[in-house]
Amino acid sequence: MKHPFLERGRRSNIEGGFAPEELELALRHVSMPLEALRYDVTPVGLHYTLCHFDIPALDERTFRLRVGDRALSMKELRAMPRHTVRATLECAGNGRARFVPRYPSMPWTHGGVSTADWTGVALRALLQDVRAHEVAFIGADRGFDSGVEHAFGRSLPLAEAMRDDVLLAWSMNGQPLAPQHGAPLRLVVPGWYGMASVKWLARIELHDQPFDGYQQASGYRYKKREDEDGVPVRHMKVKSLISPPGVPDWYTGRRLVDAGPLTIEGRAWSGAGVTVKRVQLAVDGEWREAELEAPHERFAWQRWRCEWHATAGEHQLVCRATDAQGATQPAQSDWNI
Amino acid sequence: MKHPFLERGRRSNIEGGFAPEELELALRHVSMPLEALRYDVTPVGLHYTLCHFDIPALDERTFRLRVGDRALSMKELRAMPRHTVRATLECAGNGRARFVPRYPSMPWTHGGVSTADWTGVALRALLQDVRAHEVAFIGADRGFDSGVEHAFGRSLPLAEAMRDDVLLAWSMNGQPLAPQHGAPLRLVVPGWYGMASVKWLARIELHDQPFDGYQQASGYRYKKREDEDGVPVRHMKVKSLISPPGVPDWYTGRRLVDAGPLTIEGRAWSGAGVTVKRVQLAVDGEWREAELEAPHERFAWQRWRCEWHATAGEHQLVCRATDAQGATQPAQSDWNI
Repeated sequence: MKHPFLERGRRSNIEGGFAPEELELALRHVSMPLEALRYDVTPVGLHYTLCHFDIPALDERTFRLRVGDRALSMKELRAMPRHTVRATLECAGNGRARFVPRYPSMPWTHGGVSTADWTGVALRALLQDVRAHEVAFIGADRGFDSGVEHAFGRSLPLAEAMRDDVLLAWSMNGQPLAPQHGAPLRLVVPGWYGMASVKWLARIELHDQPFDGYQQASGYRYKKREDEDGVPVRHMKVKSLISPPGVPDWYTGRRLVDAGPLTIEGRAWSGAGVTVKRVQLAVDGEWREAELEAPHERFAWQRWRCEWHATAGEHQLVCRATDAQGATQPAQSDWNI
Repeated sequence: MKHPFLERGRRSNIEGGFAPEELELALRHVSMPLEALRYDVTPVGLHYTLCHFDIPALDERTFRLRVGDRALSMKELRAMPRHTVRATLECAGNGRARFVPRYPSMPWTHGGVSTADWTGVALRALLQDVRAHEVAFIGADRGFDSGVEHAFGRSLPLAEAMRDDVLLAWSMNGQPLAPQHGAPLRLVVPGWYGMASVKWLARIELHDQPFDGYQQASGYRYKKREDEDGVPVRHMKVKSLISPPGVPDWYTGRRLVDAGPLTIEGRAWSGAGVTVKRVQLAVDGEWREAELEAPHERFAWQRWRCEWHATAGEHQLVCRATDAQGATQPAQSDWNI
């Protein structure tokens, strides 16, 4: 079903400031405040969220996960062997607000990243003896995007779906999954950007052909032009962030610290379980090495710290990470739609 | 301590869209998505937040609440008689984004309101035999606003502080208080706008004169001009909101429903424990009466519903509430700085 007036909205002019639609998206989704980089595991209400449509009202007692001909209750799923994986998830659009020009969507600056302990059953336990090209995951959330009505859905190649650490999770940080995080059941794909971890998971489908759902075929692709197919978004790229030192100014967000020695801290991560090997901090353009903690968990961010003797005046602090595959966080983003 | 460059930031031009500083504030704070009006009690991660400064890192084991000469541990506070109050809290700035022009601050549209069950000790239990004009509450959060460094602090007249239902809370919805909601201890003042409910409560002070902290003397006052004293913000005013029917379009937020009969639902509330007596719904400007549930709890929002037969085409739905004191939610906001 196509609605031309929705397509119109999609083309709204966003020059000269952020559009009201962008503001609504920023209000609607939780961005992790950067001081929360202090937590190894992000508290539930501080963990970022991105919900394409409304949070569905699902009743765990009547909920059923459809897998082919089967309809599994939460009771049946909970009776299976359970696993816990600590994973850093980042939204693929994190940083979009700094793009010039920017595609009209959720205007993340930095906070679309968090870490949680996810508990559930390994997806592969439901896929024994399966033969397929891809496995698709369909959520219970539904709405329109660019005039196309659809339920949020994404797919994984079979080999990814069969990884030990891909979970169907019903618990986050040892608590029942919250509504906004996908209750009663969600997929968690460690190492991939967050769009792969389908929330409110209602149905698992096996496909012999590439899954052509809207969010797979049109959304989440690196594109330089609207009319190209682009490259699918998959694993998270190497990145680091600074936990802001000192105290803030309410409106500008500028930070104030006393002159003297202080420790600058932050987190760094990379996708696909690749370890971060190096973090550097630049103060006013001059790079120095940060001390980087070894990874405690394969898919979770690593802590780093760097001493700095603050002097009176204004300063600019910048961090960058390099992972074990030699990829370095770029100083300038690689623009895409 | 005054920092002129912070005052400059305060005056940033916000014409032609929302300023980057406003976007950061919208990202930083949690706005309740309107479908969460479905919950009597808002789940923790969906409850709105407004934190003037960074979320402090406090350790409940070493935390002490200072009250005059006393220093109370959480263990001592938890040993006192406990009470639970269900309260709807709304940010005093809720709706600011629709003001023309608007003061540069958090650009709320609708979501700065939520309801929670708060558990703790009655404040009055700590104030026996106290003589004072006002009681002031100082948080552990600290930073700058308009160039003035301060810890967030607010006061109450003694009579308000002595109300049975004003709590020092350590629990929200039966769970330990989350960091962003004021852990380990916060004030909760049912019926007042949220600024009165000081989070990360570190110190209680008795004053014979009006408390002159920044957030009391300069902030949170209804003003038409910068140079007037204005009227202090206190109780929440009567208001209602609609739980959006149908499904959304991702970018525009427009709603789509099938033609036919459907039930429009929402919530209504007023401050100071005043009951809402009437809610009306207008479809394309034509008002009809909604069915309003009686209040279950003195300080919590009331549910309302109204049947509507949707016809093909675009429609505008508007609700308004009237409280037991005869105050009616205005169609146009009463502009103030």
